Amino acid sequence: MNVSTRSKEAQASPIRRLAPYAEQALREGVKVYHLNIGQPDVPTPEIVMERIRSYPTRYVPYAPSNGTLEFREGMSRYYAQHGLDFSPAEILTTVGGSEALQFAFWALFEPGEDVIVFEPFYTNYATMALLAGVGVIPVPCDGRTGYHLPPIEAVERAIGPKTRGILVCAPSNPTGTAYTAAEIDAIVALAVRRDLWIITDEAYREFIYDGATHESPLTRKGVAERVVLVDSISKRLNMCGARVGTLVSKNAAVREVCLKFAQARLSPPSVGMHAAAVLDKVPAEYTRGVVAEFKKRRDLVLEGLAKIPGTFARKPEGAFYLMAELPVPDAEEFVIWMLKEYRKDGATVMVAPGDGFYATPGRGKNEIRFAYVLEEGALRRSMEILAGALAEYPVKATR
Amino acid sequence: MNVSTRSKEAQASPIRRLAPYAEQALREGVKVYHLNIGQPDVPTPEIVMERIRSYPTRYVPYAPSNGTLEFREGMSRYYAQHGLDFSPAEILTTVGGSEALQFAFWALFEPGEDVIVFEPFYTNYATMALLAGVGVIPVPCDGRTGYHLPPIEAVERAIGPKTRGILVCAPSNPTGTAYTAAEIDAIVALAVRRDLWIITDEAYREFIYDGATHESPLTRKGVAERVVLVDSISKRLNMCGARVGTLVSKNAAVREVCLKFAQARLSPPSVGMHAAAVLDKVPAEYTRGVVAEFKKRRDLVLEGLAKIPGTFARKPEGAFYLMAELPVPDAEEFVIWMLKEYRKDGATVMVAPGDGFYATPGRGKNEIRFAYVLEEGALRRSMEILAGALAEYPVKATR
Repeated sequence: MNVSTRSKEAQASPIRRLAPYAEQALREGVKVYHLNIGQPDVPTPEIVMERIRSYPTRYVPYAPSNGTLEFREGMSRYYAQHGLDFSPAEILTTVGGSEALQFAFWALFEPGEDVIVFEPFYTNYATMALLAGVGVIPVPCDGRTGYHLPPIEAVERAIGPKTRGILVCAPSNPTGTAYTAAEIDAIVALAVRRDLWIITDEAYREFIYDGATHESPLTRKGVAERVVLVDSISKRLNMCGARVGTLVSKNAAVREVCLKFAQARLSPPSVGMHAAAVLDKVPAEYTRGVVAEFKKRRDLVLEGLAKIPGTFARKPEGAFYLMAELPVPDAEEFVIWMLKEYRKDGATVMVAPGDGFYATPGRGKNEIRFAYVLEEGALRRSMEILAGALAEYPVKATR
Repeated sequence: MNVSTRSKEAQASPIRRLAPYAEQALREGVKVYHLNIGQPDVPTPEIVMERIRSYPTRYVPYAPSNGTLEFREGMSRYYAQHGLDFSPAEILTTVGGSEALQFAFWALFEPGEDVIVFEPFYTNYATMALLAGVGVIPVPCDGRTGYHLPPIEAVERAIGPKTRGILVCAPSNPTGTAYTAAEIDAIVALAVRRDLWIITDEAYREFIYDGATHESPLTRKGVAERVVLVDSISKRLNMCGARVGTLVSKNAAVREVCLKFAQARLSPPSVGMHAAAVLDKVPAEYTRGVVAEFKKRRDLVLEGLAKIPGTFARKPEGAFYLMAELPVPDAEEFVIWMLKEYRKDGATVMVAPGDGFYATPGRGKNEIRFAYVLEEGALRRSMEILAGALAEYPVKATR
């Protein structure tokens, strides 16, 4: 009995595939600081948690396949707070942003077609696309320019005969980059000129620092019919495990077919949706506090890196990730070595190897992604451990 | 901007596509008895609900992609209670049984290959298969023989050059049929002889009446490597909205690739999994009580049908569904008519049209599926309404 070709071609998650080394370290009594996965430690808003603890029914019923009206109304009001006009009928509730992405790939592309992504990119895009028979065309972005977009001509040159869409993630996982208004304008104009779909992943909408603004294709005129928003409450409420996201579009045909996909899997998770329905009631101070906290953490990581010879990182504008170059030839081997060998006062650090976020072979080998999701003390400690590990690491970069 | 061919080909759920008529009736103040969807009204076990209300953390974190060890250990003990030997490592937690099915289609079949299903079948199989590029080959079963399997030669004749698997659902949604030991033996022998995968959907394992036994390919010798179990806690705990299921196999390659799919969507729902982890601690009286209740309801529906001229239904052995023939030429039109026109003391009934459970054109036109999920009073009332509606329905069957 052989499993399918596509299933063999699918990549193990670069964020999760090193988990066995971390588990082994844990069994040995080692404290592992997890900066490898976007799981923050901040509390969920109390009014949201309270909705879980007071879940009202005697059983947990199916919800409508597109989500409860209560949740979609809450999302609609939330979008209005962010200057986005979407009615509850234009919002389809999904099992996290992940399912919204899967639905978008199924709905927008024929098997054999492809979509442009900006590299480095969130790896699961490639797996979701593969499972829909869709290819990803990576357009390289340069860490030296903060992973901002290359000239739009370079993006246009990447468009092949089967290219039908562009996927934009800003603020970006894994780079933290928030594209400028001019960058988004250029992408939108290109999509119109070449008749492409735009998938916009805005799970980190609020996570913007230093006065930068969140720019979205959703606010551009004349493109509503070609834009599909994939979104998630995971990060803004720190409810990654609730598995509640949305697929939102002004395009009725897209909504109609995605509703069929949603019916096939019956229902989004009812408890998470019930809790998240009050997201528009979350006090603004909560979000301001969380964003200020992450800005402080980002700066801590950058300060720590600045003290380590041979590293390089630009200051990103958003999300809670950043990528950095390390003075090692192979960052994955270094990360494994830290988990297996390196201890500082009984502790070590786990980060995600960078090459997992690239589709172009050979790129990202000396990079890592930080998810700066731990509180100040743990983060300072993590940066000390990283500095110590790099000083002791026996394998040096050759250049 | 055109949506994809596959998305246009996907069917709207026959269970859910008439929902707008029910919503309109509701707006008109009509009481609608819902026998169209498998959403029971029995309480979730108290020890499970209590786990939701006492959810312990300040936020809702990602779980491991294959599910928490706590939940998989609970499932492993639950399987042992049912005579099935699966370690926690052999259990992958999924977003309901639905996702387990999607994973199985992706893992076991190449695009263009096909799988045998017994007709009538759970419609979402066809949509999930379509989205994986997989075809379903319906093998017709006859309501006159209780939708039991045809002679195994008829099943074998349905195998084409691209057929790679057989999907078995017993006790069956939509028919309630529980296959006999001899039927399962024959399927297993055929799968071995023709080198086919077996997907076994056992979401209704416990729901067996009249001393019938649940027969599973999982207990047959020599086929462990070709069997994939898709399962769900939705029905046995009445937590349909928790979206917690499992994909279970002794085949390590299947588990390995399905884990990659699981990593791509990050995590199953944490709260539902936390609650369901105690399923092996649910008192046996709970399950006995629920099963006895459903047996009573099945018998009520059958008694009600026996009083209505021109109907036909065999007594099914399990689940909480049954299919019945009605004396109408087009059951879907009749169901719509009940929702739009027919009222008895301000109430009407919604059932699922039968043809949605068939892939063979023309089959099932005069059938409906009952989900007998309401308590005795509501069910009696529903059968009276159905009898009244059929007496008044102006369109008569021609034969």
